[in-house]
Amino acid sequence: MDSTFLTIIEILGTIAFAISGIRLASAKKFDWFGAYVVGLVTAIGGGTIRDVMLGCTPFWMLNSIYLAVTGISLLSVIIFGKYLIRLQNTFFIFDTIGLALFVVVGIQKSLALDYPFWVAIVMGTITGSAGGVLRDIFINEAPLIFRKDIYAMACVIGGLFYWACYWINLDEVTTQIISAASVIVVRIVAVKYHLSLPVLKGEESELDS
Amino acid sequence: MDSTFLTIIEILGTIAFAISGIRLASAKKFDWFGAYVVGLVTAIGGGTIRDVMLGCTPFWMLNSIYLAVTGISLLSVIIFGKYLIRLQNTFFIFDTIGLALFVVVGIQKSLALDYPFWVAIVMGTITGSAGGVLRDIFINEAPLIFRKDIYAMACVIGGLFYWACYWINLDEVTTQIISAASVIVVRIVAVKYHLSLPVLKGEESELDS
Amino acid sequence: MDSTFLTIIEILGTIAFAISGIRLASAKKFDWFGAYVVGLVTAIGGGTIRDVMLGCTPFWMLNSIYLAVTGISLLSVIIFGKYLIRLQNTFFIFDTIGLALFVVVGIQKSLALDYPFWVAIVMGTITGSAGGVLRDIFINEAPLIFRKDIYAMACVIGGLFYWACYWINLDEVTTQIISAASVIVVRIVAVKYHLSLPVLKGEESELDS
Repeated sequence: MDSTFLTIIEILGTIAFAISGIRLASAKKFDWFGAYVVGLVTAIGGGTIRDVMLGCTPFWMLNSIYLAVTGISLLSVIIFGKYLIRLQNTFFIFDTIGLALFVVVGIQKSLALDYPFWVAIVMGTITGSAGGVLRDIFINEAPLIFRKDIYAMACVIGGLFYWACYWINLDEVTTQIISAASVIVVRIVAVKYHLSLPVLKGEESELDS
Repeated sequence: MDSTFLTIIEILGTIAFAISGIRLASAKKFDWFGAYVVGLVTAIGGGTIRDVMLGCTPFWMLNSIYLAVTGISLLSVIIFGKYLIRLQNTFFIFDTIGLALFVVVGIQKSLALDYPFWVAIVMGTITGSAGGVLRDIFINEAPLIFRKDIYAMACVIGGLFYWACYWINLDEVTTQIISAASVIVVRIVAVKYHLSLPVLKGEESELDS
Repeated sequence: MDSTFLTIIEILGTIAFAISGIRLASAKKFDWFGAYVVGLVTAIGGGTIRDVMLGCTPFWMLNSIYLAVTGISLLSVIIFGKYLIRLQNTFFIFDTIGLALFVVVGIQKSLALDYPFWVAIVMGTITGSAGGVLRDIFINEAPLIFRKDIYAMACVIGGLFYWACYWINLDEVTTQIISAASVIVVRIVAVKYHLSLPVLKGEESELDS
């Protein structure tokens, strides 16, 4: 893919992720700094965990754009809060495209470091979804993706498509587009038709806390 | 110790840890994917934190058996849920043996990297108990080991036995067996006689949240 | 600054941070081991996250003083609990001086590794405030610094003063003193005059959990 186009998508994805964190922080009455941190962690948390596990310097320490964009996201929420809420569908699209790109970036980076494909799929999934888990821990909620959504499953499926494209020898760009598209399609279909994974049942008596 | 035997014990320990995570996730109504992630984090979280601090690649990224075994654990809970509950004592034994082995592995790995013994004991304790702490954070409970159990103390005591055996020049295998056995004995004795550490008292007025 | 003096301040800061963790753990009825872990994480958590991101071995693995000092802090709380509470103002001073020093240490370490200034300021802030965030996650509270305090803002402001001093070519010692002093002044002024950042308002309806 063209790298300017990729960068624009990545920034839009970062904004969408940051704003999702900032809005939840606002519902919890966090102050501006707290909201900034929650937004930042949502946007860069997944990639940071990935990079620490891969043994790389976290990506956001190499380019200040991620911190700047999170600041702009916070300013937007402070200034345009009410109007932003009406853009819910727009954010859903950014968020989904951002998710798809984060997954592809995570897979690519792992493969470039010679990790096997199953590690790359795990890293793609972590890149896409660990930020949201950290966000939910910070605002002291049981992580949403474990209970409601096939958010993370979309990452795994995108990773499996990447793998499939690789095995049938498609070129890199086509592979990335198909993988990203599969994440987007799965996510949109799941939300539209309220699809979710089965809940693991029973055993309330096991929780002895 | 014989390495095939060690591998079998390690896999049984991983299964016991994973199932403990999956069962708590089920009590919180997590979906299958969420239960898988909580099981995985319980099983590999401690070793991952250890490896990141030691500057190594996380162990589970080098062998797909840990992810596979967690998947099999999830399947077992989905299929045999009710019957598994009756095996509580069996799981306690696996869990305790797994804990003992995880502690020994954590100590060995740290010593092999030339860290001093006190770091190795901390790493053994982290290997054995940090996964359970992450599990409790993910399901949004105050970590159980801080309130109820001498789980983590068993790790520390196992580490001290390792140290003692080393100073009196016992060979490596005997040292490992004695260290692992001390973890198992302490844990079983503590649970059987309801031993626990004193609670730190008072100061409710300090919590200003 | 004189290194013996610095070491004494660092140890006092570690004690103040550890005791803040131990006291909150005590309000949650944690046992001694749990209180020790929460105290330790409060004292060394920020520096550990910094070192992992910078790709260094966590500082406390190179010197056992931090674990020892946390143990002494726990013993003090167990033995002198009630008397320690009366020393609240003394702890506030240690805590604030410790915070200031932690920020300066985090900035210095990052600059020594050739990271740009904005990374150093983030690392200084993480060194000073991430331990408290981990503490609050461990005791299962929404992190306090995101809701009540300009604790973390004091770190950022201290970092900006460091930067300013560097640009006008002040020598290293003067730069460090000014930076640390700015953290202390901001924190004291904020607490004395009950200054806080604005809360991000509204959007309760967004929290769909």
